[in-house]
Amino acid sequence: MKLRIWTDVSYPEAATGLRREVTRGQELIAGGGALDACEVAFGQPRPEAVMDSPAVRWVHLDSAGYERYDASGVRAGLAARGLALTTSSSVYREPCAEHLLAMITGLARGLPAALDAQRGDRSWPMHEIRRTARLLAGQTVVLLGYGAIARRLAEMLAPLGMTLVAVRRRRQEDALARVIAESELGEYLPLADHLVSTLPANAETRRFVNAARLGALKPGAVFYNIGRGSTVDQEALIAALASGRLGAAYLDVTDPEPLPPGHPLWAAPNCYITPHSAGGYATEKEELVRHFGENLRRFVAGAELIDRVG
Amino acid sequence: MKLRIWTDVSYPEAATGLRREVTRGQELIAGGGALDACEVAFGQPRPEAVMDSPAVRWVHLDSAGYERYDASGVRAGLAARGLALTTSSSVYREPCAEHLLAMITGLARGLPAALDAQRGDRSWPMHEIRRTARLLAGQTVVLLGYGAIARRLAEMLAPLGMTLVAVRRRRQEDALARVIAESELGEYLPLADHLVSTLPANAETRRFVNAARLGALKPGAVFYNIGRGSTVDQEALIAALASGRLGAAYLDVTDPEPLPPGHPLWAAPNCYITPHSAGGYATEKEELVRHFGENLRRFVAGAELIDRVG
Repeated sequence: MKLRIWTDVSYPEAATGLRREVTRGQELIAGGGALDACEVAFGQPRPEAVMDSPAVRWVHLDSAGYERYDASGVRAGLAARGLALTTSSSVYREPCAEHLLAMITGLARGLPAALDAQRGDRSWPMHEIRRTARLLAGQTVVLLGYGAIARRLAEMLAPLGMTLVAVRRRRQEDALARVIAESELGEYLPLADHLVSTLPANAETRRFVNAARLGALKPGAVFYNIGRGSTVDQEALIAALASGRLGAAYLDVTDPEPLPPGHPLWAAPNCYITPHSAGGYATEKEELVRHFGENLRRFVAGAELIDRVG
Repeated sequence: MKLRIWTDVSYPEAATGLRREVTRGQELIAGGGALDACEVAFGQPRPEAVMDSPAVRWVHLDSAGYERYDASGVRAGLAARGLALTTSSSVYREPCAEHLLAMITGLARGLPAALDAQRGDRSWPMHEIRRTARLLAGQTVVLLGYGAIARRLAEMLAPLGMTLVAVRRRRQEDALARVIAESELGEYLPLADHLVSTLPANAETRRFVNAARLGALKPGAVFYNIGRGSTVDQEALIAALASGRLGAAYLDVTDPEPLPPGHPLWAAPNCYITPHSAGGYATEKEELVRHFGENLRRFVAGAELIDRVG
């Protein structure tokens, strides 16, 4: 029997062609209309619509985040239905980890300062940049969140000879990082040259990176965020940068997004911002479809789904 | 018997104190005066002065490059004397490899474009940057030169899942890269997403990266140079960037240096320049002295010197 697959995604031609291919043999209902009679939803269906549609057995989000589904009422409701929830985490793991690697190495090497000089007076600030560059070898990174992206980053940082500490809800052994509980974070922040957040947005992570935690970091430390803007107290962040105690910040996410041109974060000293681009890459849409296709194959076969979060 | 150690290096206090320490028990002749009566020279003695000073038995350069000593006349003269020549290559391997890693990952993630937007209209070019970003996984890097820096880079790139090809005079097996002879380069350039040069300046490498080689690269490829500016035909490089066939260039070295503010390389499309800062870091001078100290200890003990090139 054919599955009815609801989707609201609207991709360029290459990915749309691929979508036709991976859903061949099923009935694809594109356009994001009513969910009612569909067993599968691919894209960004509203949790309320899913709850109201008893036929839906599986929701596959075309994002790594699943904030709207990460509320206790929604989770309980989906669990009671036995409904499967999967994300596109696998599609974004590699680019997000590369993005963090680029941010960490770029700041250590003074690349933004060099570009500012190139766009400015072209003064060849060799001595200044050499003097302020830092060797990553021997430095300490504290990872807030140790999901797929942070673990991939840990693999990428492994050859650099840094000490990695990861905060995770479930404490478990790890070959690359010392995994600690949130209650131990206070002991480790003063050792951190780098604080990397991949935290999702939920009730517990709201303003998690606050004045106290930023103030506890080693002087000159750098903060990176590719999680969600809501996890940071941005006023405290601006104050920490303005005081010079925090060495720099590299943010891919802000609150709000887009960040309005007049927002003070843009001009905070040593604050660098990428426009929520950490997960993107040229073939992203095709990969999203390919990933959904693989999970569809598994769903039909009754096999375990990839990136299942509920 | 005390060694007389000539030096012309002039470092900040921390490194100068360390220099006193590592040369304790020997006679240190600072200031870069006459070499005549010295057995050891640390810094940047002129090859002619060394040739004219029969007492000199060992020259330790405080740089990774040794161009002025890499001429056949000089090499033969030093060899005939049994004079040892060492560089500070070990001190620069790590920061130079990190610099290349930062350049490669930074361009792949569109970090310069994001900074330009931040300094410009703050327009949040999320879609544009995501669409032009490239996953490094699966791409091919061709390394021109496979000395200490490039081999360290290969270690740092290992977790990224790229294909590495290295051109080296002496062909030998390598666990991380396929080592090829220069004569085979033509076969591999069309496969290269990234061309990384760490070539030193000498007669064979002059303008090695020329129009033909740049034109043979995969369309959209990126060229990186932390070797020497003289190894590149800069007019050909500018033309390749202007045509759009070469995707970008990230240069730490140019010809001349500093690059004059009016030089067309500064404004060539997608050309990014760091001011010969690849090797620098906050504790560089101390590390240079520590490295010389270790070699001095070895010289006194008759042990093998580190970073010996002649």
